[in-house]
Amino acid sequence: MKFEITARDPSTRARAGLLHTAHGVIETPAFMPVGTSASVKGMTQDDLERLGVQVLLANTYHLYLRPGHETVLAAGGLHRFMAWPHPILTDSGGFQVMSLKGLSRVTEDGVEFRSHLDGSSHFLSPERAVEIQWALGADIIMALDECVEYPSSFETTRRATQLTGRWARRAKEHYQRARDSGFGGRDSENAGPPSGVERSQQEASPRTPDPEPRIPALFGIVQGGIDRALRRESAEQILDNGFEGYALGGLSVGEPKGETFDVTEYTAELLPWDRPRYLMGVGTPSDLVECVARGVDLFDCVMPTRNARNACVFTCEGRLAIKSARYARDEAPLDPACRCPVCRRYSRAYLRHLFQAGEMLAAILATQHNLHFYLDTMWKIRQAVVSGDFVSLLRRVRTGSSKVSHT
Amino acid sequence: MKFEITARDPSTRARAGLLHTAHGVIETPAFMPVGTSASVKGMTQDDLERLGVQVLLANTYHLYLRPGHETVLAAGGLHRFMAWPHPILTDSGGFQVMSLKGLSRVTEDGVEFRSHLDGSSHFLSPERAVEIQWALGADIIMALDECVEYPSSFETTRRATQLTGRWARRAKEHYQRARDSGFGGRDSENAGPPSGVERSQQEASPRTPDPEPRIPALFGIVQGGIDRALRRESAEQILDNGFEGYALGGLSVGEPKGETFDVTEYTAELLPWDRPRYLMGVGTPSDLVECVARGVDLFDCVMPTRNARNACVFTCEGRLAIKSARYARDEAPLDPACRCPVCRRYSRAYLRHLFQAGEMLAAILATQHNLHFYLDTMWKIRQAVVSGDFVSLLRRVRTGSSKVSHT
Repeated sequence: MKFEITARDPSTRARAGLLHTAHGVIETPAFMPVGTSASVKGMTQDDLERLGVQVLLANTYHLYLRPGHETVLAAGGLHRFMAWPHPILTDSGGFQVMSLKGLSRVTEDGVEFRSHLDGSSHFLSPERAVEIQWALGADIIMALDECVEYPSSFETTRRATQLTGRWARRAKEHYQRARDSGFGGRDSENAGPPSGVERSQQEASPRTPDPEPRIPALFGIVQGGIDRALRRESAEQILDNGFEGYALGGLSVGEPKGETFDVTEYTAELLPWDRPRYLMGVGTPSDLVECVARGVDLFDCVMPTRNARNACVFTCEGRLAIKSARYARDEAPLDPACRCPVCRRYSRAYLRHLFQAGEMLAAILATQHNLHFYLDTMWKIRQAVVSGDFVSLLRRVRTGSSKVSHT
Repeated sequence: MKFEITARDPSTRARAGLLHTAHGVIETPAFMPVGTSASVKGMTQDDLERLGVQVLLANTYHLYLRPGHETVLAAGGLHRFMAWPHPILTDSGGFQVMSLKGLSRVTEDGVEFRSHLDGSSHFLSPERAVEIQWALGADIIMALDECVEYPSSFETTRRATQLTGRWARRAKEHYQRARDSGFGGRDSENAGPPSGVERSQQEASPRTPDPEPRIPALFGIVQGGIDRALRRESAEQILDNGFEGYALGGLSVGEPKGETFDVTEYTAELLPWDRPRYLMGVGTPSDLVECVARGVDLFDCVMPTRNARNACVFTCEGRLAIKSARYARDEAPLDPACRCPVCRRYSRAYLRHLFQAGEMLAAILATQHNLHFYLDTMWKIRQAVVSGDFVSLLRRVRTGSSKVSHT
């Protein structure tokens, strides 16, 4: 996986680049819509392509439980299974496993957990997380980490951060073993799905065959809560393994926004400048601008899609709670400044009606619009970095005069 | 509204034609997808256009209750409200009102009913049904009728059929008064939405302005259950009013399929050959072929959309219950013979997974596929009538060797 930095803002840490993966190039800074169970809720893959989505995030925990990574592997990997021939990143599954209150237990070895679907028992270790993601076949896979909630005691945070460090080493070692000798599925020695599957695929439809299976890139995750010393210690432990990219974990978990920004800036500074930096689970449109200014290249967040389903849409004048009676006869589009397919065609009154009537189309259209808003924000950021106008964009966001300011 | 018959099959009653409406031409025989609350569940209007949908049906009962016909009128009518600039037919609301068991009461005047949403009391008469549909602004509107369930006694059927006849006269007279003097909204004397609404619409977006509001076409409905004498009596009463098109109501309500076909054939024969015939609520793909052979031009049915949401998809080899475990690793498309956007891109395994995971995309893709299957069936029927191959298509359907045979 090659990462090219193509432009740097002279007065902030913002940079624009190209992340080359086996399934295509991602222009950074990039926002990754979340496709939890191999689907971005309410969107077809055609819709995502029309919106200009370049990379998706899928959740290993959900796919491991259903349909199972073996089933995905048998289908030729996640790209072919979900008919998305573009880049995919999978998380390690750890965040969701450990969010299962009362259903998970962390030990040095890994995490014992029970399925939220059927209560069955499972075990996730750093090695197992690599194996499952390898079978899923994403372009970028993540090392297993332990993310603590905010607030947590120093002791709790230190324990989790150090465990994350030891797990990162085990993940990297296991990944290296897979590269060297393979453990089934999509490595260089045992490439692709069984030939029977391949054949039926070709007979069945003109869908583009998957490119030759490639070795995924493994990213490490820096933890440490909001404690600078722990962040530094964590960065040192993680960097020691030489990952292909680095994620900032444990942020946007309840801490004040100022801490999110400060810890992001502090941590990003500790990471090699020539490797992509991924801030996990962040954030609002203005958070994206603020964190690009602090050196972040990749983001994911459920906010645009989840808010859409809850009738909350992003506009240049702030968020609209579109179910409000005030929009019952409002003929304007969701956002008069927006050129997305939803704003070109439909009125607020119609969207409001669809939510009131419980129509699926409500969530579909609101999701299309919100994703467009996020992708458009990233596009504006990239353009501003390239053209040297990023500081001006940042100022407009901070003073509330930019499209992304009120969000 | 002009109806041109462009081709007639020499050995059946099948015909192909063009139904010219204010919002465009409908090629007949045509299938109308059902957009109950001004949305075909799970489909965007862009999706419907891409599928080649030429006309939608919307339900007056649902739109009257929510958002209310006055709200739709204020938005410039249903076409503009739902951003569908193509033909729309509305039902009278009667069928759904009278399906509200224990919540409705039929009198000579009309139907008293309670809303299924909030229990509020309402009254629907033949005059009121015309007024509400006039406000909604559909291209084709329906006279209020009383449809009885199957089986019903001769006495019940006769009473409902005769009431339908008297209501048809009142509907036509009220419609004529509206044409002559207008009762607000979309007639020739009080055309279009208030100018303020018009202006904000134009400022807000580049959506195509609605064409000049036109007078809708009013269709009458023939009832009579499966009793031929009552069907004949009903046809005479309805025809006496000179409607622009004629519907066959009270079929597909539980009677044996043979009766559906026989009564359709018998009733269609009683109708003027130069006016469109609409068979309400029918049916399966093979029903469409059988009833075109008996002289029907228009159909509507929730089957393709509702079945899709219940994981039942139509294919050339019959219906698939796509949630079945047998499809968990099936890489074939839903229907190997289908060229729809879903079959071109996605596998049965993925669709099965989406249904298992409760993803919205499951219903979206299954609906796209099923609607394509229905529209493709209608296209094949029209081509066959035009090319003189309709009898051959009908034979293939009956012997089970046609795409639409097993459904």
